[in-house]
Amino acid sequence: MEFDLARTSAASPAAPVHQQIAEQIRGRVERGELVPGDRLPPIRALARQLGVNRDTVSTAYENLAAAGVVDARVGRGTFVRGLRPRPTPRLAGPLETSLSEGAERLLDFERGRVHYGAGRDAIPLHALKPDPALFPVDGFRRAVARAFQEQGGELLGYGDPQGYAGLREVWAERLRAAGTRVGPESVVLCQGASQGIALALRLFADSGDTVAIEEPTYHNALAALVGLGLRPAAVPMRRGVADLDALDAALSRPEVRAFYTIPTFHNPMGTSSDLAHREEVLAIASRHGKPVIEDAYEMDLRFAGRPVPSLMALDEDGLVVQLLSFSKSLFPGVRSGAIVARGRHVDALLALRNATDLGGALPLQVALADFVGGGAYDRHLSRLRRRMKARSDALGTALSAEMPNGSRWTRPEGGYQTWLDLPEAMDAREVFADALRAGVLVAPGFQFHFDGRPSRGLRLSIALADEDEIALGIARLGRVVHERAASPGHARGRAIEV
Amino acid sequence: MEFDLARTSAASPAAPVHQQIAEQIRGRVERGELVPGDRLPPIRALARQLGVNRDTVSTAYENLAAAGVVDARVGRGTFVRGLRPRPTPRLAGPLETSLSEGAERLLDFERGRVHYGAGRDAIPLHALKPDPALFPVDGFRRAVARAFQEQGGELLGYGDPQGYAGLREVWAERLRAAGTRVGPESVVLCQGASQGIALALRLFADSGDTVAIEEPTYHNALAALVGLGLRPAAVPMRRGVADLDALDAALSRPEVRAFYTIPTFHNPMGTSSDLAHREEVLAIASRHGKPVIEDAYEMDLRFAGRPVPSLMALDEDGLVVQLLSFSKSLFPGVRSGAIVARGRHVDALLALRNATDLGGALPLQVALADFVGGGAYDRHLSRLRRRMKARSDALGTALSAEMPNGSRWTRPEGGYQTWLDLPEAMDAREVFADALRAGVLVAPGFQFHFDGRPSRGLRLSIALADEDEIALGIARLGRVVHERAASPGHARGRAIEV
Repeated sequence: MEFDLARTSAASPAAPVHQQIAEQIRGRVERGELVPGDRLPPIRALARQLGVNRDTVSTAYENLAAAGVVDARVGRGTFVRGLRPRPTPRLAGPLETSLSEGAERLLDFERGRVHYGAGRDAIPLHALKPDPALFPVDGFRRAVARAFQEQGGELLGYGDPQGYAGLREVWAERLRAAGTRVGPESVVLCQGASQGIALALRLFADSGDTVAIEEPTYHNALAALVGLGLRPAAVPMRRGVADLDALDAALSRPEVRAFYTIPTFHNPMGTSSDLAHREEVLAIASRHGKPVIEDAYEMDLRFAGRPVPSLMALDEDGLVVQLLSFSKSLFPGVRSGAIVARGRHVDALLALRNATDLGGALPLQVALADFVGGGAYDRHLSRLRRRMKARSDALGTALSAEMPNGSRWTRPEGGYQTWLDLPEAMDAREVFADALRAGVLVAPGFQFHFDGRPSRGLRLSIALADEDEIALGIARLGRVVHERAASPGHARGRAIEV
Repeated sequence: MEFDLARTSAASPAAPVHQQIAEQIRGRVERGELVPGDRLPPIRALARQLGVNRDTVSTAYENLAAAGVVDARVGRGTFVRGLRPRPTPRLAGPLETSLSEGAERLLDFERGRVHYGAGRDAIPLHALKPDPALFPVDGFRRAVARAFQEQGGELLGYGDPQGYAGLREVWAERLRAAGTRVGPESVVLCQGASQGIALALRLFADSGDTVAIEEPTYHNALAALVGLGLRPAAVPMRRGVADLDALDAALSRPEVRAFYTIPTFHNPMGTSSDLAHREEVLAIASRHGKPVIEDAYEMDLRFAGRPVPSLMALDEDGLVVQLLSFSKSLFPGVRSGAIVARGRHVDALLALRNATDLGGALPLQVALADFVGGGAYDRHLSRLRRRMKARSDALGTALSAEMPNGSRWTRPEGGYQTWLDLPEAMDAREVFADALRAGVLVAPGFQFHFDGRPSRGLRLSIALADEDEIALGIARLGRVVHERAASPGHARGRAIEV
């Protein structure tokens, strides 16, 4: 990296050197020459190159980090984070800094997120946002119109805090068909599975408590933990499922209050556990008397293989709280999810919901009950599953063709995400940056770890790209990975977790 | 209260006496002879009357309390709480009880709420639910239809986590017209002001912290405090506004992190503070460096008097976070509120929202932006305000005609609620029970206190009753209050806070 530094002399005063370095790096980020995920030169190396004190470079990097342009992690290097768009300057006051510890922790966590904004024209293999081109907009629009025709002003009233009974019954019917013995009184509607995660965590754990989580896991579940002041007890994923010995050890700790798990179409791995594994998870939880939060957010997106009973369906002990959602299988804009729970758990979830936002939007719940109960959702699902099967096959074919030896990937039977392990000693964050420059967006694995540690994993999504785009995107990714594998800087021996 | 007790003898075994007492009380509740709020005889008196040991009566009351039928508070007596409907028995398991402390605290708090279900046919002067008969359903239905016509699948996507920019701009325009210098970047949409309360509390306070609140205050704000593990520092309402000396003392305590206040159309009192009081509140907050959460949930419901600038409009220091809502002035079923905040507060609120539920329902936000931005909301408001002025006048006239000496009430310039102080030494909880029996629902004041202490205040609402119903309801209430004032049991000298 070249810099053009002016030295201050009596004749020509210049800005401090650290400021010049910082400004030139910021300029490169603004012009797109450096993109999020790019690693800056090590402080020692750049100081030597420029003939300046190490503290000078260090100060430049620290100021860039304070401005949010880079992300500096001790012992791991300094990475470009990108410039977040700020539309217009906001009014500010001296008290802006008086935030709670929880809010500060969350702001810090959010700063570690990848910002994909720079890759607007790249092929999107990064996000689990369902494809708007596949939304059954007309059918739902008609269901909304019917709801307004058939119900008067009551449609715009507060409604039942547990959620519209008609939609709870629709959920209960689907659950019974899949083997869970519940009625509508066991269903609490919520704002997508994401609100379900926050409510379920608060159901079992107080600030300072610990919750067992799979690693890697859904990054918004990590955000919920951070925001609630909860600590993680990591249960590593091994061969695509939670390691049972680690789970047993975690749940044996008295401070661990619950286990959050995604047994079906795991996020980010795409894998599912089998019946024997699920029974073992429940046996371990039961032995330790600890509840299980089963995130089933993609439960309706199976396109291959045979269904496995959910933890909720297998649970005999009132151990499990299950989270469901229409966000991935239908569309997220209705913010419609559900929590399935038993006995006092239902009362407590309602009390938590009351103290949070008093419930969801009734008109959309009524329209969904009509749309789903009338069969339109199932018709949409079978179209969607066919498309996803084709995309998943295209992804598998492309990965086989393009990825070098030493890489491996999961074979999901449903859901949007596939997990790609890069060849050993390759950091997914660096590959992400190369890939972004090459015109393809992928989700680097470090975001799925609570501590943001380096990862050789990438999450690939088939949600937004069709078969041709998938083939092209993976070809671009393959080129980037091959180049990095062949580069002399590779295998510089940094330890990378597997 | 009469009881028919069978004594066990060798010839005829009977149920234990405490069980017979409990069952007979429960029977009276089931048959509606005892209604929520009724006071049971003191233990000592009933034991003497029945010729049984005090422990026997005490055990009966305790079992009724455990079953949720009565509410026993040490030193305050035992009150009927009512039977909560349970549709069908839920599946239950042994782990049901493993709840977080926060969830247990909330369940306990919810048990203290009044259940109004028994008064379905009574005149509703208790609730702040806007009248569905006044909802502009057709206009909003058309706005929803236009949103679907004009936007495709994107309307059902995730959208901006801060909320639809068009609706944020509509809010900002209205705020600027009322003197607050903000743009759409300072507005964060949320699920009604209630979610705003929970998010704003989390912005400034962590579990174990203290927040200054007015007493009495909105009972769902109390629920939010309880759920988040926050402690209250009470700032008593004096002549309808927060007592400034008490506020100064509260904010001087280092553990107090913020002040939650409802300066306009206070809930439950209906009063508003004047400009001088607001400036003093801001000066006190500024002196102590503590932020202010201004709940402006009924901000558009002024029907008399002159508008006073909001705390947000007066704030020069970035001290204030303001909560807005369409729930009372339009309809609650769209769950549409907003938080106005500055600088880092906005970033932190977004991070908290992301960790809570990822944002609201885009189709309703787009339709609201159209409906409100196009002028239909203002047309609705002027109709609604006229109706409310008429109802408020009817309430004032009825109170003057029906209430005995020693009672007094507030004169709101807007909003739905009026606060009635009953004659001294009268407990609003007992009057509530009498009134329910007489066919009118009112909200007893103890619910607006964190500790649920007795109160001689009643909250009366004009939201759901028209002028004739208000006149009839207050006539019924007046009769009940007169009877109680004339009864020999009155003025038995229990101290009641004012």
